[in-house]
Amino acid sequence: MRDSTPALPSPALALWEQRTEVPLFAASLLFLLGYAVRVLAPDDAEPWHDLALALVAATWLLFVIDYAVRIRLSGLGHRFLRVRWLDTLVLLLPLLRPLRLVKVYTAIQKRHDEPRLSLYARVMSYAGLAALLLGFSAALAVYHQEHDAPDASIRTFGDSVWWACATLTTVGYGDAVPVTPWGRVVAAFLMACGLALLGAVTGSFSSWLIQVFRREDEKGPPVSG
Amino acid sequence: MRDSTPALPSPALALWEQRTEVPLFAASLLFLLGYAVRVLAPDDAEPWHDLALALVAATWLLFVIDYAVRIRLSGLGHRFLRVRWLDTLVLLLPLLRPLRLVKVYTAIQKRHDEPRLSLYARVMSYAGLAALLLGFSAALAVYHQEHDAPDASIRTFGDSVWWACATLTTVGYGDAVPVTPWGRVVAAFLMACGLALLGAVTGSFSSWLIQVFRREDEKGPPVSG
Amino acid sequence: MRDSTPALPSPALALWEQRTEVPLFAASLLFLLGYAVRVLAPDDAEPWHDLALALVAATWLLFVIDYAVRIRLSGLGHRFLRVRWLDTLVLLLPLLRPLRLVKVYTAIQKRHDEPRLSLYARVMSYAGLAALLLGFSAALAVYHQEHDAPDASIRTFGDSVWWACATLTTVGYGDAVPVTPWGRVVAAFLMACGLALLGAVTGSFSSWLIQVFRREDEKGPPVSG
Amino acid sequence: MRDSTPALPSPALALWEQRTEVPLFAASLLFLLGYAVRVLAPDDAEPWHDLALALVAATWLLFVIDYAVRIRLSGLGHRFLRVRWLDTLVLLLPLLRPLRLVKVYTAIQKRHDEPRLSLYARVMSYAGLAALLLGFSAALAVYHQEHDAPDASIRTFGDSVWWACATLTTVGYGDAVPVTPWGRVVAAFLMACGLALLGAVTGSFSSWLIQVFRREDEKGPPVSG
Repeated sequence: MRDSTPALPSPALALWEQRTEVPLFAASLLFLLGYAVRVLAPDDAEPWHDLALALVAATWLLFVIDYAVRIRLSGLGHRFLRVRWLDTLVLLLPLLRPLRLVKVYTAIQKRHDEPRLSLYARVMSYAGLAALLLGFSAALAVYHQEHDAPDASIRTFGDSVWWACATLTTVGYGDAVPVTPWGRVVAAFLMACGLALLGAVTGSFSSWLIQVFRREDEKGPPVSG
Repeated sequence: MRDSTPALPSPALALWEQRTEVPLFAASLLFLLGYAVRVLAPDDAEPWHDLALALVAATWLLFVIDYAVRIRLSGLGHRFLRVRWLDTLVLLLPLLRPLRLVKVYTAIQKRHDEPRLSLYARVMSYAGLAALLLGFSAALAVYHQEHDAPDASIRTFGDSVWWACATLTTVGYGDAVPVTPWGRVVAAFLMACGLALLGAVTGSFSSWLIQVFRREDEKGPPVSG
Repeated sequence: MRDSTPALPSPALALWEQRTEVPLFAASLLFLLGYAVRVLAPDDAEPWHDLALALVAATWLLFVIDYAVRIRLSGLGHRFLRVRWLDTLVLLLPLLRPLRLVKVYTAIQKRHDEPRLSLYARVMSYAGLAALLLGFSAALAVYHQEHDAPDASIRTFGDSVWWACATLTTVGYGDAVPVTPWGRVVAAFLMACGLALLGAVTGSFSSWLIQVFRREDEKGPPVSG
Repeated sequence: MRDSTPALPSPALALWEQRTEVPLFAASLLFLLGYAVRVLAPDDAEPWHDLALALVAATWLLFVIDYAVRIRLSGLGHRFLRVRWLDTLVLLLPLLRPLRLVKVYTAIQKRHDEPRLSLYARVMSYAGLAALLLGFSAALAVYHQEHDAPDASIRTFGDSVWWACATLTTVGYGDAVPVTPWGRVVAAFLMACGLALLGAVTGSFSSWLIQVFRREDEKGPPVSG
């Protein structure tokens, strides 16, 4: 059983990535905040709209610079686009940055050297957090597309969050559903990602529960039969 | 692979918890009963309403006292709130107490020393029972929020139970759906918890079935090929 | 890890069960057939209705006799009801007999001594077949309850089968939904059982697929990297 | 634990299958293309309709010839129909050919001898691709059945793709649902297959994530506690 690790990064790249991971994650949260303000603020709130746009543009520029530096440090040239395709995708669609959360988590852990959570708890918390951030991003994007479409059933941001919950958990009531083509593309993406992430949460919880019960077995008094 | 066990409890706390687990679980069932009566009884059934309120208040007081004693015995002071955050959550939202069922189960088992169920059967029965109790609590809470909302599709307690079944199993027909903000918050919580608990039931059942078939393999006659 | 095997059956009971398993399964299919004819035949098809009723009654009588013989042979007296509660449930609700399919399968296998299927294939075929039979029974029962209810969305047997498919797979479109209390009870039962059985099918398929790919790994040429 | 491998194929058959796998897969993509054009082209686009029909007929003929050759080479005679029933099914319903993708993948891998993906990545990519192709085929078939049915909720091919996404992921909003009997048969088939394939994707992703976190554990600094 071998892992799909791409070509090993150069030491310089590894150092750069370790150092920039947390600031970039903060920047991606700022990006999300800017996007949220832009989508949710009423149309006539002029200063907020412009500020949010500036925030979005600034953070995106940061991502582009980081990407360029990493291409340079990797020494891979244009092969970088193919070998690290996930990074490329994340550059083009910054709303997907939460998926990089796992590296941030590792980086923070290495720094603080705190007692770590158990394996399953970490998988659960990573997948759960990533699902939450993706769900929030998707709710924003769908609200953006849908709120002024004719015949839309998603009219408020609350509806959109409610729709994201029902979609991520695959409950799918159908009382709030995207009707525009782009809204549906975002929804299909959320279904695919959410399904995998939530499946990881469920699977880890199940494994963790079995582990807890098994451990208790070993501690328990000897039983007859 | 290490577990996320918090700081070991002091012996006094461990003894207290072992002794109070079952009475407190009984109290939490009484709390649920009181809440159910309060929500389900018709508005003009005066004495019942007041009795139910008294029951709810009395059991909640019990939980507060137990919590205070445990803070004291733990010797952790205000760190108790953070280390045992699940206990704190359960104190604030007593409808979540069924999640502590696993400790009750262990406590009862230790006392009776009966032959225990198999590992998977225990995980299934714990997760199934917890899902059932959570589903019932959620059905009560949603009925409470929804039954007199305009445009509600959940009008009777039967509708609410039906909705809880369809939500816990992620079927989500959408014929009965919460429409109020608080109803939707409860629903989102039920989806998240229910998904994990039901996933544990399904996973354990699947593992158990594979185990049964494997065992039968070993017992079976030698086969050709 | 210990299994929840009840008290070992006496040799006489084991022999009886092995011998009667297949005939009783045939009888349970006849029961299902009789019930299906009774539910699906138009009301004025007199002779068919009576024949179907006779068939249902005769097979049920057979189950009662078998149950009585087994109580006798087990030597457990009234404890039989508790120890073998699944048998008791199956006696009262013969539509659940498909769940005993696993024993029938074993009995047939022992007799023919054919090369058996692989472990995962057996779990999949058992769980899949049980889900199919339960789904068919549930579709019959729900059609029985719903087809003349006011405001019913399940009006034909085709609707009912469609509803059963969407429910078993937890898709739950909501275009055909039971509205009567008993229809909803049957539906909730189908959700719970179907979820577990389908989870077993999915889990086994997943394990089988991973096994296939792993095996191919071992056979494959040595790879670089 | 033994696998359900049918009788070993003769060397001639194995060679034939290895050589024809990739061309036949290309043919099956052409078949899908022809079917897509036939279903999606407007009715008055005469030349396209005829070309597509010719393409479909020609590729189907190819499948029949391949099937006949394989019966001959296997030396099994009419037992081939039973032993290789999946091949027979795929001959009758060429839209199911994507399920053979796993063999194509293996064949390509053997030829190129590239560094392979990890086990879980391969299961995920196989199951994901098969689900995608099946979903696309089902969307075509359902659109074919539904688009001119009275009261249909699936009116455009976009609706049909949206329906296929919501069905494969078991979200099942219910805003676009097949209403014709044949549309529902296709849907039920998609639910069953899609559930198993998506379950494999989710399961592998979950296992992969746990593996990643576990590996990182081993690399990490020794931790206290």
